[in-house]
Amino acid sequence: MAPSLDPRQALDRLAAALLVVRASGHPADGQRRYPRWELDNASLQRLLRRGVGGVILLGGSAAELRLRTRQLAAWAIEPLLLCADVEEGVGQRFEGASWLVPPLALARIHAADPALALDLARRYGACTAREARQLGLNWVLAPVCDVNNNPANPVINVRAWGEDPGTAGALAAAFCRGAQAEGVLGCAKHFPGHGDTASDSHLELPLLPHSRARLEAVELPPFRDAIDADVAAVMTAHLLLPALDAEHPATLSRAVLTGLLREELGFQGLIVTDALVMEAIAGRYGASEAAVLALEAGADLVLMPGDAEGAIDAIVAAVRSGRLSLEQLQTSLERRRLALARCPADGGASASSPLGSLSNGPSAPDRALALELVQRSLERRGKGSVGAGPGVNLIRLDNSLGCPFLPGGAPALALPAAAGLRACLIDGQGPSPWSGDGEAPLALERLGEGPVLLQLFVRGNPFRGRADGPDPWPAVIRQLQAAGRLAGLAVYGSPYAWETLQPLLAPDLPAAWSAGQMALAQSELLGRLGFGAHASGGAGHGAAAGGDFTD
Amino acid sequence: MAPSLDPRQALDRLAAALLVVRASGHPADGQRRYPRWELDNASLQRLLRRGVGGVILLGGSAAELRLRTRQLAAWAIEPLLLCADVEEGVGQRFEGASWLVPPLALARIHAADPALALDLARRYGACTAREARQLGLNWVLAPVCDVNNNPANPVINVRAWGEDPGTAGALAAAFCRGAQAEGVLGCAKHFPGHGDTASDSHLELPLLPHSRARLEAVELPPFRDAIDADVAAVMTAHLLLPALDAEHPATLSRAVLTGLLREELGFQGLIVTDALVMEAIAGRYGASEAAVLALEAGADLVLMPGDAEGAIDAIVAAVRSGRLSLEQLQTSLERRRLALARCPADGGASASSPLGSLSNGPSAPDRALALELVQRSLERRGKGSVGAGPGVNLIRLDNSLGCPFLPGGAPALALPAAAGLRACLIDGQGPSPWSGDGEAPLALERLGEGPVLLQLFVRGNPFRGRADGPDPWPAVIRQLQAAGRLAGLAVYGSPYAWETLQPLLAPDLPAAWSAGQMALAQSELLGRLGFGAHASGGAGHGAAAGGDFTD
Repeated sequence: MAPSLDPRQALDRLAAALLVVRASGHPADGQRRYPRWELDNASLQRLLRRGVGGVILLGGSAAELRLRTRQLAAWAIEPLLLCADVEEGVGQRFEGASWLVPPLALARIHAADPALALDLARRYGACTAREARQLGLNWVLAPVCDVNNNPANPVINVRAWGEDPGTAGALAAAFCRGAQAEGVLGCAKHFPGHGDTASDSHLELPLLPHSRARLEAVELPPFRDAIDADVAAVMTAHLLLPALDAEHPATLSRAVLTGLLREELGFQGLIVTDALVMEAIAGRYGASEAAVLALEAGADLVLMPGDAEGAIDAIVAAVRSGRLSLEQLQTSLERRRLALARCPADGGASASSPLGSLSNGPSAPDRALALELVQRSLERRGKGSVGAGPGVNLIRLDNSLGCPFLPGGAPALALPAAAGLRACLIDGQGPSPWSGDGEAPLALERLGEGPVLLQLFVRGNPFRGRADGPDPWPAVIRQLQAAGRLAGLAVYGSPYAWETLQPLLAPDLPAAWSAGQMALAQSELLGRLGFGAHASGGAGHGAAAGGDFTD
Repeated sequence: MAPSLDPRQALDRLAAALLVVRASGHPADGQRRYPRWELDNASLQRLLRRGVGGVILLGGSAAELRLRTRQLAAWAIEPLLLCADVEEGVGQRFEGASWLVPPLALARIHAADPALALDLARRYGACTAREARQLGLNWVLAPVCDVNNNPANPVINVRAWGEDPGTAGALAAAFCRGAQAEGVLGCAKHFPGHGDTASDSHLELPLLPHSRARLEAVELPPFRDAIDADVAAVMTAHLLLPALDAEHPATLSRAVLTGLLREELGFQGLIVTDALVMEAIAGRYGASEAAVLALEAGADLVLMPGDAEGAIDAIVAAVRSGRLSLEQLQTSLERRRLALARCPADGGASASSPLGSLSNGPSAPDRALALELVQRSLERRGKGSVGAGPGVNLIRLDNSLGCPFLPGGAPALALPAAAGLRACLIDGQGPSPWSGDGEAPLALERLGEGPVLLQLFVRGNPFRGRADGPDPWPAVIRQLQAAGRLAGLAVYGSPYAWETLQPLLAPDLPAAWSAGQMALAQSELLGRLGFGAHASGGAGHGAAAGGDFTD
């Protein structure tokens, strides 16, 4: 700390430096999509002046993020940790950068060709980190090191690098090496392993009933691999593991963070909590008390405390009362300093290339990587092409409002439209498409005439726990085939949905799966089904928009 | 021209300087929403190096536009005209700036309080121009000077400043004075008046059969007023007016541009065509020939030629062959130079305030103006509040994909959701909500149980020419009232829709209209119907998002 500070100020600033608060990537308060969770600019400026040491960003385009990270750095009194959940490329969260297929797609490549998959994972990490750095981020909150051995997992699923510990660990470590070689920090998550839960820790506290031996066999190996790859940070899980700590969730457990991660696994880097505002923690412990408990347990950094001012005050009070030692916090601050020292300073930008190498979107090599990942992981079955319309382009998605992968003119709309198929979107926010008949669930007369191309955008857990009852899509496929109206099937996202549905198809029926949902996956997949020309590659909607002129 | 150029190069550059080409406000090619119409970056760089003198921008956020205008200026060899169709505030097109109610709302205020309306129109222009300049634009393609005396007009409608020439002219002139006092050029459009057409000149060439006397009485006065207000530019209409020119549409008519506008009306500023790629012109004359014809007729600048390289070549060839005089083009270039001389140079930006006064969205006075405009123009009828649910929030809109006024968490969704109303969106791209019974058109069983809040987002021409037949909403209102299920009505946009529907309502039924469709209009209108707290004002989705955490 600066020598001019009195001890009280110094302690306050020390506590503040260990927080990572949440901000929108959009520059203006009025643009925030989650104003309940994203600090307004006045609060951000106040907290950064007080010494808050990190910001996690969500929302906005690549251009907005570029302006935003400069703005935050200018408001701060010390170099900041600037991070984002860009697990699937920076374009997953910030339009204009590379959006890559989910990691689980690489696990499938790994089964056939491990060396190729490892090289792709390294390049995946390098692409993500290079673009992150170009936009002012110095910390990528990836790789996920959870083993997705439970297909019903609602939060990890295709975000994982494998369904077995060997694959997950090898690919996550390759990602990590690729990313950190670009001068950006990685973060292995969610320790000690969130892959085998069937409930969502955003909402409730999942319990993992496994023995220590089982954890050693399945959950821990990918974290060991990431630590061997010198991962800069590890993020904790909001999970109860009675085999390790009967009382506290991992995030708040001294046995897990200090005993297991720091001492047994020998991790020397930054331990960061998952978001403390998540209901599983905030609802039980209170946000400020949770921050103190996490540091007591051995965390170095506290992510998204519900009330940052309150968390700083609570940490200061805990040091004064002897609950937390000053030395421990200073050690955490030193770890933070060492991590930042691995990152080169944010460079400038020219007017003609305001986003550096991203000024015209992803670079040619990164576009080629995105395309190679889509092409190598795409699965196609059946024969021939989907015929031209008139007919129906029936699309299932979670939410068509603000949908990042389906702007007007996206290939999933434009290519079938060019073939005469009229779009009909089912997203749970329109008139019901359901007949009430479980054997023939679709009310076909509400969709229009002709053959149906069925496009399902499903990630996470499509087959359980939906508010509208058991998943109807297997029955829909049987119904459309029985009526002679199924022309083709496209599944974007979950391999489990694909594996459930494709055995139901008539042998010749044209169908394909991509783990990715973005424009590039749409154009490649539909190209394989015989639609239009392929898009030119890249993050955009290349094949989009025919006659439209303006909005 | 620079003395070092040989005559051939000088002529080429002169021709190029008179073009205004179209680009996306998004920085990367892959982000373009209309790739058929928006030049890619390689073409833009090539054209700007050749001397193209202007760019019209559409798409992207305020932050993206800020980067984009700097980038274009850096690519250009001379100062550029940088313009956009920001008729309803910069936020209408570029998120993060002020989005104001459509001009026609001020015409209604003018009927009751002319002085207030004139002051509001002046502030409307000042706000638009100030924000445009902050983001690097120097030319606002407004005000619309068309008189909307034909409610069936599909393209002008609420974009007009009045339904009579006196109101339209007075308010358009006030807008123009307010805008140009901020050092940004205005543009009166669409000469000689596009208000009384019932077809869309984007698609076909409308014919206006009026006599010269009628044009003097209705169409021309607002343009005279704008010229008196020293408007810097006038944009032509793609309209056939046999009383003035039996052969050529106004855009290509020497009688209209030179005879009427330049000589009779004495306009000394820039005459710019409407977009030449519009089918009404491009389909008939060919894009490059149309550029030559427009200049021959007396235009100074050519907007959106279909093929800019071809247009430059055609203009050069026309000078060489004697069709166009070099002196005329040099006069146009001089008018362009004089216009640019009215605009201060684009200033720099600091890291902490990258968008200048727009760094945290609109300024407090501009937020207050946006709120005042919504509040003064909002109409409320009936009594009491819309009760809490369970029930249905039935929303009609043109397209929910990429909808600028309805991102997830917008007040029209969030406020009814907080009151227990489940959203059901009808946008013509979902399962049909229609029963086939003209007297009871809604298939109520597809919507869910309970009372219905009906929210209609309608602009332009909601009651004619829809692909799905005659507008069903009057019958829907009768049906819902007969079933005892109509809880409230909100109309956003067309006053004609409101005037058609509100007489059908039971006397006490809570209902309201706003000319605006943006978040601020939603929160204010729903507040008047008894929903939640008002949003805090500004361009954003202040009252949005309850429990959502991430996407």
